[in-house]
Amino acid sequence: MRIALAQINPVVGDLLGNADRIHAALAATEVNGKVSADLLVTPELSLWGYPPRDLLFSAAHLEQQQQALDQLQQRLHAEQLDVALLVGVAEVAPDQQHPRLFNALALVQARGWQVVARKQLLPSYDVFDETRYFRASSSPSTLSLRVNNRDWQLGLSICEDLWVDEELHGQRLVGPDPIASLIPERLDALINCSASPFSRRKGTLRHELAARAAERLQCPVVYVNQVGGNDELIFDGASFVIAPGDDTPLLQLPEFAVSTEVWTAASSTDRLEQPSRAHQQANTPDDDLEALFRGLVTGVKDYATKCGFKAALLGLSGGIDSALVAVIAAAALGPDHVQSLLMPSPWSSSGSIADALALATRLGIASQIVPIQTLMEGFEATLTPALNAEPSGITAENLQSRIRGTLLMAMANQQGQLLLSTGNKSELAVGYCTLYGDMNGGLAVIGDLYKSTVFALCHWLDSPDAGACRAELGLGGSGPLIGQAILEKPPSAELRPDQKDSDSLPDYERLDPLLMDLIEQRMSGEQLIGAGHDPDDVKRIERLFRRAEFKRRQAPPLLKVSKQAFGSGWRLPIAAI
Amino acid sequence: MRIALAQINPVVGDLLGNADRIHAALAATEVNGKVSADLLVTPELSLWGYPPRDLLFSAAHLEQQQQALDQLQQRLHAEQLDVALLVGVAEVAPDQQHPRLFNALALVQARGWQVVARKQLLPSYDVFDETRYFRASSSPSTLSLRVNNRDWQLGLSICEDLWVDEELHGQRLVGPDPIASLIPERLDALINCSASPFSRRKGTLRHELAARAAERLQCPVVYVNQVGGNDELIFDGASFVIAPGDDTPLLQLPEFAVSTEVWTAASSTDRLEQPSRAHQQANTPDDDLEALFRGLVTGVKDYATKCGFKAALLGLSGGIDSALVAVIAAAALGPDHVQSLLMPSPWSSSGSIADALALATRLGIASQIVPIQTLMEGFEATLTPALNAEPSGITAENLQSRIRGTLLMAMANQQGQLLLSTGNKSELAVGYCTLYGDMNGGLAVIGDLYKSTVFALCHWLDSPDAGACRAELGLGGSGPLIGQAILEKPPSAELRPDQKDSDSLPDYERLDPLLMDLIEQRMSGEQLIGAGHDPDDVKRIERLFRRAEFKRRQAPPLLKVSKQAFGSGWRLPIAAI
Repeated sequence: MRIALAQINPVVGDLLGNADRIHAALAATEVNGKVSADLLVTPELSLWGYPPRDLLFSAAHLEQQQQALDQLQQRLHAEQLDVALLVGVAEVAPDQQHPRLFNALALVQARGWQVVARKQLLPSYDVFDETRYFRASSSPSTLSLRVNNRDWQLGLSICEDLWVDEELHGQRLVGPDPIASLIPERLDALINCSASPFSRRKGTLRHELAARAAERLQCPVVYVNQVGGNDELIFDGASFVIAPGDDTPLLQLPEFAVSTEVWTAASSTDRLEQPSRAHQQANTPDDDLEALFRGLVTGVKDYATKCGFKAALLGLSGGIDSALVAVIAAAALGPDHVQSLLMPSPWSSSGSIADALALATRLGIASQIVPIQTLMEGFEATLTPALNAEPSGITAENLQSRIRGTLLMAMANQQGQLLLSTGNKSELAVGYCTLYGDMNGGLAVIGDLYKSTVFALCHWLDSPDAGACRAELGLGGSGPLIGQAILEKPPSAELRPDQKDSDSLPDYERLDPLLMDLIEQRMSGEQLIGAGHDPDDVKRIERLFRRAEFKRRQAPPLLKVSKQAFGSGWRLPIAAI
Repeated sequence: MRIALAQINPVVGDLLGNADRIHAALAATEVNGKVSADLLVTPELSLWGYPPRDLLFSAAHLEQQQQALDQLQQRLHAEQLDVALLVGVAEVAPDQQHPRLFNALALVQARGWQVVARKQLLPSYDVFDETRYFRASSSPSTLSLRVNNRDWQLGLSICEDLWVDEELHGQRLVGPDPIASLIPERLDALINCSASPFSRRKGTLRHELAARAAERLQCPVVYVNQVGGNDELIFDGASFVIAPGDDTPLLQLPEFAVSTEVWTAASSTDRLEQPSRAHQQANTPDDDLEALFRGLVTGVKDYATKCGFKAALLGLSGGIDSALVAVIAAAALGPDHVQSLLMPSPWSSSGSIADALALATRLGIASQIVPIQTLMEGFEATLTPALNAEPSGITAENLQSRIRGTLLMAMANQQGQLLLSTGNKSELAVGYCTLYGDMNGGLAVIGDLYKSTVFALCHWLDSPDAGACRAELGLGGSGPLIGQAILEKPPSAELRPDQKDSDSLPDYERLDPLLMDLIEQRMSGEQLIGAGHDPDDVKRIERLFRRAEFKRRQAPPLLKVSKQAFGSGWRLPIAAI
C-alpha cells in the first residue's frame, strides 16, 4: 500500500486553513492528475497546529474542528477519492471531568470520519503541558485498512508514544509502553504522528527511537513530523520511514520545508521477498550548524508571517549578536524587508559604526543612524533634580539601552515592523541585558544560543561550508558575510568608555560551559565545583543567574533550539531562595 | 487529642528557613512554656513554599530538604517533645521514570521521620502544573497516632484530594475519589494540608467542600492552608476545622495573617457525648472587597519583602488606577517607603496633577514632579529624520508612555526600589497599555482587577465600611482617601488633547461584563452575542483582545485574585488564529 507522509506547516488555531493544507498535501501526491496514495498521514494535532495551548479550551475552535473534518470528508466524497486521511484532532470526552480531551487521530474517508487512536503518553515536561488539556488513553490503537484486496494491519501512535526508550531518551514517562502492547499485533507498519520540536542533534535520536521500535515490532515505522515555527518552537519536519535492522531511513523528508512523499509499504507476510526499497538519499543537512541556522531562519520567517508582519527591524551595534540576527532576518524575510538602526552613543567606538554599516551593505539591508547623545543628556537633565544626583552606574547604562529600545519601538510602531531582539542566552542567564531596553522585541531570535554558539555559527557562515546554504537562502556572494572585524572584536556592550564584557563576567570560554551545566544539567553549586568549574566563578554566576529571573520572566518569546531554553519550558519562581 | 493548625508563610525554596517557621509555629502553641499540641499540621509542601515550580528539579534543594527534616527531628529530640509534625514534602521515587516526585506529607517525631501520605489528585489546570513534577498516588492515606492511651485514626489528604465535588467546584479531575476510599476507615478526623490560592469568594467554597467531606466521613475536617504571597499567587490562610452537620466552622483562623491555633479533637466513639466544641468567632472579613484589598496588600508586601525590597516606586497620574496602587503600596510597605512620580505632559490636565499631589499628601507618601515635554521633543527631533515624518498616532502616544516607563525605571534602579505597575485587567485585555511603557514594573498590582472592580474598591476605601480596616493598616483619618475628584473623573490616558478611554473603547459598564464572559467563561463570539452583548462590541473587542496577546506575554507578574487571571494560568499562542 502507498502511504503518503504529509509534512505540513499548520497555523495554530486555523482549523479550516489547516484542513486546506492537508488537502493540498494530498494533491501533492498526484501523478498524472491522480492521487497516488492509499493513506495520507499528517502530524500530531495537524488540524490545530502544535501547540494549540489554551485554544483547546475554546468552544469556537472545537466547533470549527467538526466543520473542518466534515469538509475534508465532503471533499474526498466529491472528488470520489478512495484514500484515507489520518488527521490529528482533539477528541472531546462525553463526561464533564477534567481534562476533557484526548489527543487523538481521526481517520477521514469519503464515507465518513471517526477517531481511531488516542495518545497514551502525555508529556508534561519542558515546554509540554499536555496533561493540562488531555487525558491519557490506556489502550493501544491499531487500524485495519483494506487495500488491494488485502487487510493491512497498522499500529497507530502519537509522538511521545514512541519515546519509551529510557536509555536513548534519557528519561521515560511513568505509564504504559505503547510499543510493547503492539508486538502481538503482527503489524505491517507502525505509524507515528508527531509534533516534535527541533533541538540540536535531535534528528539522530528520533531515528534511533524509531529503529528500536521497528526492531521490536519487526515492521517499518512511518514517522511524520510537523514543520515550521510556532512562537518559540521550531519544528524541523524531517519525517522518515525506517525499517528493522536498517540504520539509514528508507525514506527521508527534508528539514524545514513543507513536503509530501509517498512510500510504498510491503505487507509483513511478503516483506522478506520484497527487497525493493530504494534507499533514498537523505537531504537532511548533516552539519549541525547548518541545521541550527536553517532552524532559526524558519523560526523568524514563520513567526513574522503568522503574526502578519512583512518586515523586521533590529538595532545593529557592530557586535556579533546583532550581526547574526541581521543575517537570519535577511535570510528569513529577504534583505529588502529588513531595516537596521545604528544608535551610537559617545561610548560607541567608531569601529562599531563602520562595522555595522559594512555588514548592512554586505547583506543589502537598509540602515539608518540615530545618535542618542542628545536624549542621554535630556534624561540626565530631567532626572538629576528628582534624584538629587546624576544617574550613574547601572542606572546610566540602562538608560542608554532604554533610549535605544524606545527608539526601536517607535520606528517599528510607525512602520508596522516586527522588532527583533538580539540578546543571547549567556546574557539572559546572568542578567547582562536591560529589561525594556535591548531586551525589547516581539521575538528573541538568538535567545537560546550561548555566546560561544553565536561565534561558532558566525564562523560557519563565513566559511566555505556555508556556501551552498547561503546561496540557497539568497545570502549572496562567496566572501565573508559577518567579516573579520566583527568576528574578532572583544565582546562589549559599549555602555561606558572602554567597557568589555570580560570586565564584569568571566571570559565566555569559562562562562558558557558553566552556564550549560547550570541550566541544561541543573547542577547545584557543589556539583558545578565537582565538575571542575572555578569555585569563585560558580558563586558569582549562581548569584547573578538567580537574580536575573525577573528579567527572563518578561523577556520576549525566544526561539528554542536547545534541550533547555528559557521560555515556556523554564518555570522558576522569582521571590524565592 | 490536640491538633495545632500551623498557618505559616513560607519563603519558596527556603527549606531550612521554612523548617524554622514550622518550629516557630510549634512554639506558638506553648502554654506556660509547654507545647500544647499532640500533632502540628502544616500546609501542603510547607518545607518548600508553594508553588516551588522548577526548584523541584534542583538537586541542591532536594538535599536541603533532607537536612531540614533531620534538623526538625533533632530539635524535637533535643527538646524532648512528644509531638508529631505533619510536614509537606517532595518525596523522590526510587526509580528514574518521569516525573520522579510525589507531593507528600512526612510525619516528623523525636525518634525519626517518614513519609505518611501522597497526593492522589494532581491539578494541572489554571496556574497549577503538578503533573510536571509529581506522580499521582493511587492509595488513600491514614495515620494512626497513639495519644492519651488511645489510637487516633486520622485520614490524610493534600489540597485537591478534597476537591472532589463537581457540583460545588464546577469541575472534578479524572481520577479516584480520595474521600470515598476513606469512608470505611471510621476516622476520628480528616486532615487536609493545602496551598489554595486566594480568589474572590473562594473561602465559602472551601467550607462547603470540607463540610461535604465531613458529612461523608462522619468526622471533622481539619483544613490547613498556606498564607502569604508568592509571586503572582496570594494565599489567604483562613484555615479551619469543620464538623459534620455544622455550617459554621468549629475553629476559624484569620485571613492573610500567620497564625497557629490548637483544636482539641474528640474521638469518633465519644464524639456524640462531647458537645464541648466552643464555637469560635470567625475573624474572617465578611466583606468581599475588604478581603480583596487585604489580599492585594499581602501580595505586594510579600513580593517586595521576599525579593529583598524595602521601598516601592510608582507613577501617579491623577487617575484611579495609580491612586489605588498607591494606597495598596502604602498599606503594604508603610507610606514612608513609597515614592510617587508625577510625569505630566502637555496633554495632562492641571486637575490630574493637583489630584495626584493631594492623594500623595493624604497618604503621606513622597511625590516628585518630572515633566516629560523636553524628552518628548527630544525623541521627536531624533526620530523625525529616520522616519521621514514626525512620530504620530499610536507611535507618539506610546513614546510618552515609554519616556515615563524609562524615567520610572531609572529612579527605581538608582534608588533600589521595586517599581509597581498600575495597569488594570480591562486594559491588559484589550491592549490599552504600552509595552515597555506603563506596563513596566516588577509586579502588576491590580492587573487582575477589571476597571469596574477598581472603582468598586476605591469607593469602598472611601466608605465608612473600610474604617476599621484602614485604621488597622495605618491608612489614617476617617476622611476620603481616594477622594471625589479621582473617583468621578472620566477614565483617560491623557496621551493626546481631551482624550477619553471611551473614545476608543466601549464604556466600562459595557466592556467589563463582555470581558468577563470572554475571559472567565471563555465564550466564543457567538456565545457572547447570545448572552446579550452588543454584536459590534463583540467583534471589535474580540479582535483587540486577541491582538494583545504579545503584550500580556511580556507583562510583569500580576497578583491573581480571580478565577482566571492573565499570568501563568493563561497560556495562549501569539502567532495563531
